[in-house]
Amino acid sequence: MIPRYARQPMIDLWSDATKYRIWFEIEAYAAEAMAEEGIIPKEAARTIREKGDAATFSVERIHEIEAETKHDVIAFLTHLAEFIGEDARFVHQGLTSSDILDTQLAVQLTRAADMLIEGIERVLAALRTRAFEHKDTVKIGRSHGIHAEPTTFGVTLATFYAEFDRGLTRLRTAREEIATCALSGAVGTFANTLPSVEEYVAEKLGLKPEPVSTQVIPRDRHAAFFATLGIIASSVERLATEIRHLQRTEVLEASEFFSKGQKGSSAMPHKKNPILTENLTGLARLVRSAVVPAMENVALWHERDISHSSVERGIGPDATTHLDFALHRLAGVIEKLIVYPENMQRNLDQLGGLVFSQRVLLALTQAGISREDAYRLVQRNAMKVWDESAKFLDLLKADEEVMAALSAEEVEAMFDMNHHTKHVDTIFARVFGES
Amino acid sequence: MIPRYARQPMIDLWSDATKYRIWFEIEAYAAEAMAEEGIIPKEAARTIREKGDAATFSVERIHEIEAETKHDVIAFLTHLAEFIGEDARFVHQGLTSSDILDTQLAVQLTRAADMLIEGIERVLAALRTRAFEHKDTVKIGRSHGIHAEPTTFGVTLATFYAEFDRGLTRLRTAREEIATCALSGAVGTFANTLPSVEEYVAEKLGLKPEPVSTQVIPRDRHAAFFATLGIIASSVERLATEIRHLQRTEVLEASEFFSKGQKGSSAMPHKKNPILTENLTGLARLVRSAVVPAMENVALWHERDISHSSVERGIGPDATTHLDFALHRLAGVIEKLIVYPENMQRNLDQLGGLVFSQRVLLALTQAGISREDAYRLVQRNAMKVWDESAKFLDLLKADEEVMAALSAEEVEAMFDMNHHTKHVDTIFARVFGES
Amino acid sequence: MIPRYARQPMIDLWSDATKYRIWFEIEAYAAEAMAEEGIIPKEAARTIREKGDAATFSVERIHEIEAETKHDVIAFLTHLAEFIGEDARFVHQGLTSSDILDTQLAVQLTRAADMLIEGIERVLAALRTRAFEHKDTVKIGRSHGIHAEPTTFGVTLATFYAEFDRGLTRLRTAREEIATCALSGAVGTFANTLPSVEEYVAEKLGLKPEPVSTQVIPRDRHAAFFATLGIIASSVERLATEIRHLQRTEVLEASEFFSKGQKGSSAMPHKKNPILTENLTGLARLVRSAVVPAMENVALWHERDISHSSVERGIGPDATTHLDFALHRLAGVIEKLIVYPENMQRNLDQLGGLVFSQRVLLALTQAGISREDAYRLVQRNAMKVWDESAKFLDLLKADEEVMAALSAEEVEAMFDMNHHTKHVDTIFARVFGES
Amino acid sequence: MIPRYARQPMIDLWSDATKYRIWFEIEAYAAEAMAEEGIIPKEAARTIREKGDAATFSVERIHEIEAETKHDVIAFLTHLAEFIGEDARFVHQGLTSSDILDTQLAVQLTRAADMLIEGIERVLAALRTRAFEHKDTVKIGRSHGIHAEPTTFGVTLATFYAEFDRGLTRLRTAREEIATCALSGAVGTFANTLPSVEEYVAEKLGLKPEPVSTQVIPRDRHAAFFATLGIIASSVERLATEIRHLQRTEVLEASEFFSKGQKGSSAMPHKKNPILTENLTGLARLVRSAVVPAMENVALWHERDISHSSVERGIGPDATTHLDFALHRLAGVIEKLIVYPENMQRNLDQLGGLVFSQRVLLALTQAGISREDAYRLVQRNAMKVWDESAKFLDLLKADEEVMAALSAEEVEAMFDMNHHTKHVDTIFARVFGES
Repeated sequence: MIPRYARQPMIDLWSDATKYRIWFEIEAYAAEAMAEEGIIPKEAARTIREKGDAATFSVERIHEIEAETKHDVIAFLTHLAEFIGEDARFVHQGLTSSDILDTQLAVQLTRAADMLIEGIERVLAALRTRAFEHKDTVKIGRSHGIHAEPTTFGVTLATFYAEFDRGLTRLRTAREEIATCALSGAVGTFANTLPSVEEYVAEKLGLKPEPVSTQVIPRDRHAAFFATLGIIASSVERLATEIRHLQRTEVLEASEFFSKGQKGSSAMPHKKNPILTENLTGLARLVRSAVVPAMENVALWHERDISHSSVERGIGPDATTHLDFALHRLAGVIEKLIVYPENMQRNLDQLGGLVFSQRVLLALTQAGISREDAYRLVQRNAMKVWDESAKFLDLLKADEEVMAALSAEEVEAMFDMNHHTKHVDTIFARVFGES
Repeated sequence: MIPRYARQPMIDLWSDATKYRIWFEIEAYAAEAMAEEGIIPKEAARTIREKGDAATFSVERIHEIEAETKHDVIAFLTHLAEFIGEDARFVHQGLTSSDILDTQLAVQLTRAADMLIEGIERVLAALRTRAFEHKDTVKIGRSHGIHAEPTTFGVTLATFYAEFDRGLTRLRTAREEIATCALSGAVGTFANTLPSVEEYVAEKLGLKPEPVSTQVIPRDRHAAFFATLGIIASSVERLATEIRHLQRTEVLEASEFFSKGQKGSSAMPHKKNPILTENLTGLARLVRSAVVPAMENVALWHERDISHSSVERGIGPDATTHLDFALHRLAGVIEKLIVYPENMQRNLDQLGGLVFSQRVLLALTQAGISREDAYRLVQRNAMKVWDESAKFLDLLKADEEVMAALSAEEVEAMFDMNHHTKHVDTIFARVFGES
Repeated sequence: MIPRYARQPMIDLWSDATKYRIWFEIEAYAAEAMAEEGIIPKEAARTIREKGDAATFSVERIHEIEAETKHDVIAFLTHLAEFIGEDARFVHQGLTSSDILDTQLAVQLTRAADMLIEGIERVLAALRTRAFEHKDTVKIGRSHGIHAEPTTFGVTLATFYAEFDRGLTRLRTAREEIATCALSGAVGTFANTLPSVEEYVAEKLGLKPEPVSTQVIPRDRHAAFFATLGIIASSVERLATEIRHLQRTEVLEASEFFSKGQKGSSAMPHKKNPILTENLTGLARLVRSAVVPAMENVALWHERDISHSSVERGIGPDATTHLDFALHRLAGVIEKLIVYPENMQRNLDQLGGLVFSQRVLLALTQAGISREDAYRLVQRNAMKVWDESAKFLDLLKADEEVMAALSAEEVEAMFDMNHHTKHVDTIFARVFGES
Repeated sequence: MIPRYARQPMIDLWSDATKYRIWFEIEAYAAEAMAEEGIIPKEAARTIREKGDAATFSVERIHEIEAETKHDVIAFLTHLAEFIGEDARFVHQGLTSSDILDTQLAVQLTRAADMLIEGIERVLAALRTRAFEHKDTVKIGRSHGIHAEPTTFGVTLATFYAEFDRGLTRLRTAREEIATCALSGAVGTFANTLPSVEEYVAEKLGLKPEPVSTQVIPRDRHAAFFATLGIIASSVERLATEIRHLQRTEVLEASEFFSKGQKGSSAMPHKKNPILTENLTGLARLVRSAVVPAMENVALWHERDISHSSVERGIGPDATTHLDFALHRLAGVIEKLIVYPENMQRNLDQLGGLVFSQRVLLALTQAGISREDAYRLVQRNAMKVWDESAKFLDLLKADEEVMAALSAEEVEAMFDMNHHTKHVDTIFARVFGES
């Protein structure tokens, strides 16, 4: 985890202190359930809960014990026993380390998902606000980086809203998938514990019982979770890329907010760089790098091996934390994005009306000319605009073949921006449910 | 696409012939809708439909035209015009190539998903049958490749059933996500077409209209689709790996069916190798390799660039076809898997009762010994079994400290296999809805 | 392999016909060496060579036999025996299939590397020619997409030349690494063959003997090979991205050649899109997708498993063929790139001299002003240029604090383009060995 | 970076303190060179060096300044000025932040490479020692996890030695490639600095000048570096996988050292798990996850964007640190590996002589039987061994067709282990240069 790209709630979630506290919760709830089932004394369960609640676990002490046992859960249990005393022998009855570790990871990923959901919701809110603000701000649409036809900046933002909204749905699904609890013992057979214990702990932690586990919670769930983060990160990259393009010196239709005191370059004091969105582009690569290892983690050997563990110690905190940071950074960029409608208009005007070429093409075919011939007529005039900076409308009106099919008035009528914005309301209604 | 790992229906789906036929369907439906809206003559729409239905498109001719125009959709339209005649000018009115290409890809991926769903269902059926068949076939469970505690082969298969069942759910979701139709024109504004045309074509093709597109269907949908394939492939790998392990010479608890006339090695006639499951392991890597490029495809520039296209010409057919092949190969392996219950029993007996160590540990703690001391007592006897091949039960009965806490009878009672199978019904009920 | 992105020599290299011919060569050379060692009769070796040379192998027949034996090399040997007759029993003596398969792959990858080297050399030649042509063509350098300081288009091309030159060196290294021959028998011990046979065959095929193999040639060699392709593909992407940026409507400093008859868009006849370089961007993703599976192939089990095989049937032809195609497409783009020096000048002038801001900063510090203060002075004038479209030079001359440190003449002297081109000769000498 | 998998020298290398110290070194050397060239006063260069050498930089203070300027290098320079005083204005003359940052990263990656080289050398030393120790320890070779033919454990280790030796060569190449210094100014044109300054600093830091940079050191160098780490990690995975297999309960030919006090499982005190090599398997996935993002970093926009930076803040420390840790962990595993030659012999005997099947096949062909018939004869006897646990030798001697071609003595002579070890010296000579 790169601290520079981490918000405090995620840092806290992935701390050792949080981890040990979750471990204790699992053990304490399991003890309660076992007491209920008569496996351990009720008094013991009460002692475990009370003394554990009151205890402050020492990360150093646990690491010290682990240095000898080479086993983290045993080290924790040994430390826990130092608080609980004799009744500690009733802790962890019939459970195996993975019961604790995998359920803990499920708790953390579920909480992380909740934070990520908040992040996406903030991005969505920002996109919605700015989309309605610029619903009618006309700008050129670009395919292949080349001017295509007009659209509005609101429509552009609507495409991102729809995309992040899908991301939100996927994330909610991934959250449900990851929110399971396994307390099924050494090879998942409940040999020395009971399904009812698992069910009790699951409910207390807001999880569902894993239908069948093999000591571990199956890693296809985690693969699905991290793949979802990778997709959302890719959407972050698309929006970041859009803004980087819009801020280019020659385009300058929008730019990141540049704060007072900010410096763009150590060498060139004139610079205002889209560094936040460039940063988001890099973060997207980082988050995405978790996807393949998470998939490689699925094929554990037999009932389990522990190869997934080191991977998850990396990608668990890293991917969630960096995506969380990225979502909030992105939301901030959108919220404060500076938009230059006048530059949008300037760029729109740049090609001298070329962007209306399709309308002329269609009118010619409607007027009885074959598609191939119509294309040829329009293209030969259009290419002159590129090469000679002439006005497209003038060229068309000077083209005898065109004029044989269409009147000058008809051609002029095609050069009308309203044509391109007349369905914006429909699009907004589809995306936002209102327009 | 590697022909060796392809079934005919997938080969057909991804053929040029199928592609052009889908293109025609889109254009013909669009013409019908446009005729309905009065954009083109109804007669023209009828001609387009009839002559196109009757036509046999020539892949060679289209490629020939494309060599000049460097544009595949224009090449197709030109060829189509050769069949339709003058009314061809009413084809593709107000549409852009991506409307055709992206909707075609949606149709193909949707059909591919349907085939993959069939493949998973066959895997699930095989797993279910074999799981119930071996519900009570006891075998050792292994964590870290080391004997842990007993389980049954049915439970092992149940874990895979549950995993592929999750895969099925995910695939169905991915299928819904990918099944959209975009006919929104050059930059998604419907400038020269109508939302109603899109809605009509979508319905006819069994798709949903894309709420907002930017000339292209947004690539987060495709990323989610290919990520889902990657996760399922990883589950294939897990099951393949399990079988490869079980077929190892020293383990030999199960093996792939070895057909009459089959040869295992050109040099060593004695060999029976798990080549199908090794092949599946490799195919999983191949399918997974589509995931990252699909995510890299998301951040297209502005309204779109065409960088995604070459990627999808590769991963589209490859990932779906190889996963389809893999699922059916896997189903066949499971259906015909040879299981050796006697070898399972032999391996189970190998460690001289060590696998009951946890029960002894728990009994000692229940008898009042601290967890740490109990662990030490059990471990010191267990390690002797590894080192000296002694019987675990004998060693325990000879250990004075153990005997101080437990009677010989109590210890003997722990060495009971039934302990480990008593919740198999519960597990089956959770996974299969019956036991 | 996508036929659309494949050149004929690569298609031929990866054909079944070529594969079987290489298999025969290996077997025939091995027979010669075995005859020399007295393992088989010299007459038999001669018969094998002569009848095999004369034979035309039938791909269909081999596939037919393989359908029964489920083993490709045995199928080939059976077919070969149909030509050779009784002496066929001396073919493949003491060898194992992997000896043939891995050596064949080494031959193919080595030949593929030779073709790729030619491709890079063509790219380098094109870059060199165009770099010298535009050595003094001044244009703005851009960091973060924002105007930074002037450079020349020749320098830009020189950076790519240097990068592809490193790629060439890496590819030559990778070629050496992959060019090994293993004929060491079932587990690499030469139990039924001789190291001298391996050495003879290696020499005849232009390979080096693999020092130690485990039935298979170790896959770290292949991982290194495909990683190298991935890096070169990434360089292709960088150059493609540069051109895509330069062709943007607002920038238009260079563009791909647009051939007569070419059509940019089915809907918009005015379009000239950088589709070749966008395509190269996608191909880069595809080639790169081979890297991770190639690395996953390294950890084969024990002496070998066959999971790598299906992966290599995919990535072997695909990655080499698509990179080969990409290199030649890229070379063509560079060779025919249309450069617009006048647009470069127009863009350079756009920011009203802001690009000289660093020189002013340095002059102020040299004049005794602290770095922080100098930065502040320059930045406050520079930001006005962005906001108010004023001329930077005018603003500086109107700034009293600046004028207190520098004379108007001194400031004017800083606005000199020559300052930025005076080391171009040095850079060219470093990169090309001449300037 | 996961602290659990990090050795102190790597932690120190990637600390903020080290980074700022390297920044200072670069600035101080650059000042010396600039003083020599007359760009800044010699006295100033001396002051910078002396006061900077004496200074203790405050990470907190720098972060504080950065919070305002949003620029890390400017923040550092401001802090540096607090120590140096007025002459600070001569620091960083004509340089740009990337000159500092990229050269710093080159220094760190070069030092990291040196540590990794040490790690590989330790692995190689351990492999060499154990290989010679077990040069003649016979064991079964396994292809597809199935017994193939005998080999020795020394030969197995020799294959890993050869592989890591190739890794060492690749790492040295990657180290050379990454060890470059760029001090070329805002867009690489040396507009406000001199090539000689770059050359001086490069030499002082043990680097080579970057022939041409575009503000940044080209990222293909970094891609090659991280790809090399990924390949080495994959070799780590192969060796780890081998040991995991050998330690399986049913195989148990070798096992990781199990230290006193170590606990294998919180639930099952009898367990001795190969957790170190499983951990190495996971670390390999983590290291490998740096490869694709490093390649995605290559295609920066124009002269540079800063998307690579966040990626490298992650993968720079993470990949080097985790691979460093993995190499030392692996070396320790090999050094202390417990080998069980008696179990190797037991497993070797398991298949009742089947492993000699190839020799019988060859003898039959030498005796005049066709390859296909010989294969059939051997296979029909071999398959009985699998199915009926009969002795292979007995079956062959009872097979009339076999006995018609070979005498009983001839067949018996084939069941000789020496056949399989007679070229071990040759292999060792090839790999180690001695045997």
